[in-house]
Amino acid sequence: MGKIAHDFILLDAGRITEYIKKVLEQAGVREDVSCHVSEGLVQASMRGIDSHGIRLLPHYLKGVEGGRINQKPDYKFEKTSASTGKLDGDHTFGHAAGVEGMNKAIELATEAGTGHVAVYNSSHFGAAAFFALLAAKRDMIGMCFTNATPHVLTTGSNRAFFGNNPVCFVAPCDGEEPFCLDMATSAITFNRVMQHKESNSQISTDSVADANGNPTTDPEKAKYLLPIGDYKGYGLSMMVDVFCSLLSGMPCGNDVSEMYSGEMSKRRYLGHFFTALRIDCFEEVSVFKQRMAGMMKALRSEPRRDMDIPVQVPGDPEKKIAEIRTKEGIPVSKQLQDDFIQIGKNYKVNFNL
Amino acid sequence: MGKIAHDFILLDAGRITEYIKKVLEQAGVREDVSCHVSEGLVQASMRGIDSHGIRLLPHYLKGVEGGRINQKPDYKFEKTSASTGKLDGDHTFGHAAGVEGMNKAIELATEAGTGHVAVYNSSHFGAAAFFALLAAKRDMIGMCFTNATPHVLTTGSNRAFFGNNPVCFVAPCDGEEPFCLDMATSAITFNRVMQHKESNSQISTDSVADANGNPTTDPEKAKYLLPIGDYKGYGLSMMVDVFCSLLSGMPCGNDVSEMYSGEMSKRRYLGHFFTALRIDCFEEVSVFKQRMAGMMKALRSEPRRDMDIPVQVPGDPEKKIAEIRTKEGIPVSKQLQDDFIQIGKNYKVNFNL
Repeated sequence: MGKIAHDFILLDAGRITEYIKKVLEQAGVREDVSCHVSEGLVQASMRGIDSHGIRLLPHYLKGVEGGRINQKPDYKFEKTSASTGKLDGDHTFGHAAGVEGMNKAIELATEAGTGHVAVYNSSHFGAAAFFALLAAKRDMIGMCFTNATPHVLTTGSNRAFFGNNPVCFVAPCDGEEPFCLDMATSAITFNRVMQHKESNSQISTDSVADANGNPTTDPEKAKYLLPIGDYKGYGLSMMVDVFCSLLSGMPCGNDVSEMYSGEMSKRRYLGHFFTALRIDCFEEVSVFKQRMAGMMKALRSEPRRDMDIPVQVPGDPEKKIAEIRTKEGIPVSKQLQDDFIQIGKNYKVNFNL
Repeated sequence: MGKIAHDFILLDAGRITEYIKKVLEQAGVREDVSCHVSEGLVQASMRGIDSHGIRLLPHYLKGVEGGRINQKPDYKFEKTSASTGKLDGDHTFGHAAGVEGMNKAIELATEAGTGHVAVYNSSHFGAAAFFALLAAKRDMIGMCFTNATPHVLTTGSNRAFFGNNPVCFVAPCDGEEPFCLDMATSAITFNRVMQHKESNSQISTDSVADANGNPTTDPEKAKYLLPIGDYKGYGLSMMVDVFCSLLSGMPCGNDVSEMYSGEMSKRRYLGHFFTALRIDCFEEVSVFKQRMAGMMKALRSEPRRDMDIPVQVPGDPEKKIAEIRTKEGIPVSKQLQDDFIQIGKNYKVNFNL
């Protein structure tokens, strides 16, 4: 834990959702868009994905103010076959274009068994799980990909070509929240690097590389993230880029725009890809969900290597944090509180939670 | 290289294909099935995936003789929506059931934009690329998954739950063979462990674990394979198992049958999943293939970390080996030559290449 760990307050999810929604609307964002963004940010924070949660509000507001993000998108959806379509996100928030895209995929799947939507002209969409989880609510498997700013060292090179392009897979489950795998294709994220910087601690080996592409454990020297499994993580990043950039017609690889260092007036031209797959086209939904639950219980009952550390299913840590934060609230650092107070003043929304 | 490296002959791909096909037919395998198996085995060997190539013939023949593999399958395909279907492989070779499954997926995609087929009652299918490459020939993206014997250490446990379930993604490309990512979800394969045993060399760290689930570099102690990226490779294995076991209705996780140690009279009840996705539903095929080629060229031109080691695209090593073996032939060890001669005698097929 960093030195800021003792300096936070706990905020109720419902009230912070309302606050973010109001601020966005005061910034000229249309109501349907502000709903998706506030829900997406708060869901990420609730699940412990703080890097993709409410802390991004100040950054996004700069994007709205600068003109990077369109507050009132004119979506254009083109159905290209029974199971496919393309969505023009019109440069709005990725959260909103993403919900629109996944809902179209679900609509296609309802008729054709599966639905696949490439979204173009989009922006940062936060945590991928937000969209894939929508499919699970409809008894479908959900998958979601996005391209991202290049940060992952190319195997054999001394610099990055692909972003930390996430792979997200969600399947519904009997009696508990869906199985949710939402993983970057690198060993760790830059958020983790920042935590190591704050706590002045070494990063584990084979996780990051310095400016020359050489592996390092020093967080101060970390410039690139290393892909998981060497060429395998690199290959997965490339697969995601094919889905998100080549199928959508957006810039690919190291032409993908910068999130933080780019000009806030410039559109990001990001691409996403959403898949929904009806379970009942393959197996009775009740049987599938029972087997899914059985698999998860079986995994958690596997013998432990260390008696004090439980065997977890991917996504379990997020489920546990969500349970805690539902009761206790979302921890907000002093820095972010100050940001929220200032934003509240600027946009005439009371930050009084 | 192992000590057997100097003791091989080079065999022509066409002639070895013909030999395997004739042997299988003499073993009672129907012609369409024997075609797919011989092509699949030889393609894997040509691409340097020797573990999944022609060396498997003796093992498969035991499966035919023992009754594990059905020589004359009665496939049953059920179309369950515009873009989905299920195929009963009737316990034949996975290579044959797989080609049938991928061809059905391509057929569905031709009409509905995408096609997704779950295959049940199948057996070992060799290298996943064999099937996904079929989609690329039709200007589609191909994906292919299979479940497998549990060998990958579950994160936090001291034993395996999932197999080394492969993820395969193929996309067509202008002016060269398709981009082909065909990766296991573990750091290395057991085939590599065997090579280390033969050469009495240490395995790199974070690749395998001993019988207690503790990481080891000693090939003699290796019992489990470690997943790439810790919980990420484990999560990918689980995703693949959901596709191949839960959607197909086959046994999952550590109920998946043994390849080598199981009785050769017992059906394997494996499941696979095939996806084909028409590129022209998203982007002009010529534009996509040019951008795909451009991406691959750009990656190979990225600055090198070590001037003597080229930057490669995943799949490049297989392409290079295929080029060499097209000219020179497939190297066959003395052991395998002896096996082929003996098999030739048993099945009255002349091994005279």
